[in-house]
Amino acid sequence: MSLPDVAAAHRTELQNFERAILARQTQIESWFRAQWRHHHAPFYGSVDIRNSGYKLASIDMNLFPGGFNNLNPAFLHLASVAAQDAVERACAEAHSVLLIPENHTRNTFYLQNVYALYSILRQVGLNVRIGTLNPEITQITTLETALGDHITLEPVQRQSNRLQLADGFTPCMILLNNDLSGGVPEILQGLEQTLLPPVKAGWTTRRKSTHFHAYNLVAAEFAQLVGIDEWTINPYFEVCSGLDFTSHEGENRLAETVERLLQRIQHKYDELGIQDKPFVIVKADAGTYGMGVMSVHSAEEVRGLNRKKRNKMAKIKEGLEVSEVIVQEGIYTYETLHGATAEPVVYMMDRFVIGGFYRVHQDRGPDENLNAVGMHFVPLNCNIASLEEQDAEDEATSKREFQPWDQLGIPQTENATQASDCESIRLYVYGVLARLSLLAAAIELENMPEAVV
Amino acid sequence: MSLPDVAAAHRTELQNFERAILARQTQIESWFRAQWRHHHAPFYGSVDIRNSGYKLASIDMNLFPGGFNNLNPAFLHLASVAAQDAVERACAEAHSVLLIPENHTRNTFYLQNVYALYSILRQVGLNVRIGTLNPEITQITTLETALGDHITLEPVQRQSNRLQLADGFTPCMILLNNDLSGGVPEILQGLEQTLLPPVKAGWTTRRKSTHFHAYNLVAAEFAQLVGIDEWTINPYFEVCSGLDFTSHEGENRLAETVERLLQRIQHKYDELGIQDKPFVIVKADAGTYGMGVMSVHSAEEVRGLNRKKRNKMAKIKEGLEVSEVIVQEGIYTYETLHGATAEPVVYMMDRFVIGGFYRVHQDRGPDENLNAVGMHFVPLNCNIASLEEQDAEDEATSKREFQPWDQLGIPQTENATQASDCESIRLYVYGVLARLSLLAAAIELENMPEAVV
Repeated sequence: MSLPDVAAAHRTELQNFERAILARQTQIESWFRAQWRHHHAPFYGSVDIRNSGYKLASIDMNLFPGGFNNLNPAFLHLASVAAQDAVERACAEAHSVLLIPENHTRNTFYLQNVYALYSILRQVGLNVRIGTLNPEITQITTLETALGDHITLEPVQRQSNRLQLADGFTPCMILLNNDLSGGVPEILQGLEQTLLPPVKAGWTTRRKSTHFHAYNLVAAEFAQLVGIDEWTINPYFEVCSGLDFTSHEGENRLAETVERLLQRIQHKYDELGIQDKPFVIVKADAGTYGMGVMSVHSAEEVRGLNRKKRNKMAKIKEGLEVSEVIVQEGIYTYETLHGATAEPVVYMMDRFVIGGFYRVHQDRGPDENLNAVGMHFVPLNCNIASLEEQDAEDEATSKREFQPWDQLGIPQTENATQASDCESIRLYVYGVLARLSLLAAAIELENMPEAVV
Repeated sequence: MSLPDVAAAHRTELQNFERAILARQTQIESWFRAQWRHHHAPFYGSVDIRNSGYKLASIDMNLFPGGFNNLNPAFLHLASVAAQDAVERACAEAHSVLLIPENHTRNTFYLQNVYALYSILRQVGLNVRIGTLNPEITQITTLETALGDHITLEPVQRQSNRLQLADGFTPCMILLNNDLSGGVPEILQGLEQTLLPPVKAGWTTRRKSTHFHAYNLVAAEFAQLVGIDEWTINPYFEVCSGLDFTSHEGENRLAETVERLLQRIQHKYDELGIQDKPFVIVKADAGTYGMGVMSVHSAEEVRGLNRKKRNKMAKIKEGLEVSEVIVQEGIYTYETLHGATAEPVVYMMDRFVIGGFYRVHQDRGPDENLNAVGMHFVPLNCNIASLEEQDAEDEATSKREFQPWDQLGIPQTENATQASDCESIRLYVYGVLARLSLLAAAIELENMPEAVV
């Protein structure tokens, strides 16, 4: 692939930033290694990155990533190597793993992701079985994935403090690919088996704001290490709670928060001579799937929400009500692929970047949320399948593509060709930003109490 | 790339073998993981594999591999991940590594290999410097590599029990990419720093026969695990010592050994209905670079060696005299790429396969040694540069290519296209065979006394 273009006006800033990172590559990698001696990396994770040239940051950290099917298959071996480390840390003599995916059964792209995870774990010689919490699946069920592979779901059972399958399969490690947005089911509570990620990482207890508080620490230390302004890698944010979008409860407080944040951004823009118009993203503090998210350019917009928008914000995945939001500085996306806004998504397993792709959205602007249609990961050039989780109303005509990375961002030789050199530097920088978020997630999880459910 | 062809007569046998391996993939990977809990993988290694369809085995295990420059750059990230594990096991808090390459300075392809190793280690945030034992290099010297990169060689100094560079750089770990064929220099003896691979792995003390004795144990256990005849993955061999090729000393004993081995092979061929004519490889028990190697089809050939052949066998790298040889069952190579004999070479770092390529030799037959021109790793479609280590007399007109692997051999989906599926299965099988040799090398090193020098 060739990388997305960066708008000419911001290309120089981006190149300067990239050079600053690259010049300190050894120190950066050494710093990461030191960090991982003190913090345990989450089992896996993915981040969404925004790049305006003058500012780059991951704006979301997913601890239960789907979309492994969307990575370049050439990197799956790396994923297996990384997974092996993570599994062995969890249970030194692990032979088997029980994988528990989301309850979706009709989203065949998600099923392909489950197949990809299954394959990654099989590669390291683990006996992998797929359990399901879906109450509608009461017997062993084989489903076909988007690419025509098959996965077999087996209902999980509880036997004292252990999960097992009907034939008594009860491994020491359980891998969750289910973000627990609907709460922690009783069957997962108080297990003696190791669950990775831990139950507390699920959206029942996790808060975006806690993550970004941890990210503040990481970003500050990193900025000092590299000698850059922390703001260039860290969006401002504030939390606003006690909201009820349906009844307009808290609307004024939200508007004031938006106003305050817009002013801070404008102040920074003025300082740096940036001509863009500030905007913020309002999103549910607990939640994923790109739901309950809106771009806001003025406090008035929040005050004047029409019913459709309020409804959209009021409930997210699994019908959860939104009462707390994070208001996050918006970062313009000045990367475009064939004219469409493109947002890099980076996948990690244990401490390592194992791949990435560009999320390309043909009908969205540089200041909009690109993760708007839910968890559908569509191979390049395919239209998005109909959604099972969410009202796709205003998305039905939009087209999204996923362009997997060809490499992982390692400058190969001193004198690589200009184009490939630029590409590898940019992907390396994305990998660095992604790992900053991963480190923040590690610290976030360490500081969280065990889940109270 | 598309994989080399396998001669039609042996394609079915190969496919059956591949299927047997693939069917037990999970057990195999699980077995490897269990083995690596009891044995320490060498820091790195490469193997040469021969494939006749009815028999596949690695016929050589190099513990100081060159040729990292010849791997697919997309896999270098994996190499870094694997190297990180290995370095941290050696020194938990390692920040720096001193890399000590061979003394070659004019072989720019070898220098490119040094640059590749340097880059792999730099990627993990290590401060890497390149030391040299070459007595001709008395000051800091920058050399240009084949692709126009640069490496800086610095003379090493001894300070009490540590190696250091002129400015006092003295890391806790030293990585040898020098196989010590010329003996263990005094400056490397009795160091308190960790040397990887250990000095005893060098050709001063290492013997091929010791490796293949360890391989016998590994191959027997693996064959039982997978339910195959051990012979299909393990060539017969015997050792013959007390030889002096120059004076014909021991010639009869060598001929008898050859005769005995040819009979054993013929017996096995008869049992399995194989029509090929048995041959053996006679090679120095201590030595590398494909020197001191000959293909032999009858005992008479050994008795009637002309002076040129005797001279060729008598001395190997660094002028070492050959007094002990290993006589190893030859395996026909029925893989051809564009009509030329092709031999897979697999590279490993720590426990992991990190890439591979085909060594393609246009003027050699299926029963000849393909590693005949020494350590030159030439990028695809380039002619071989003139040799600095060896008389290239009858090699000058031969042409060799290196075709890097595109992937690491992981069947991606159940229903991958036939071609890519076959390719990934074959490469997976090569990776398994390579790791059997790696495991044998681990056992071999464990059982060796520390180097007596």
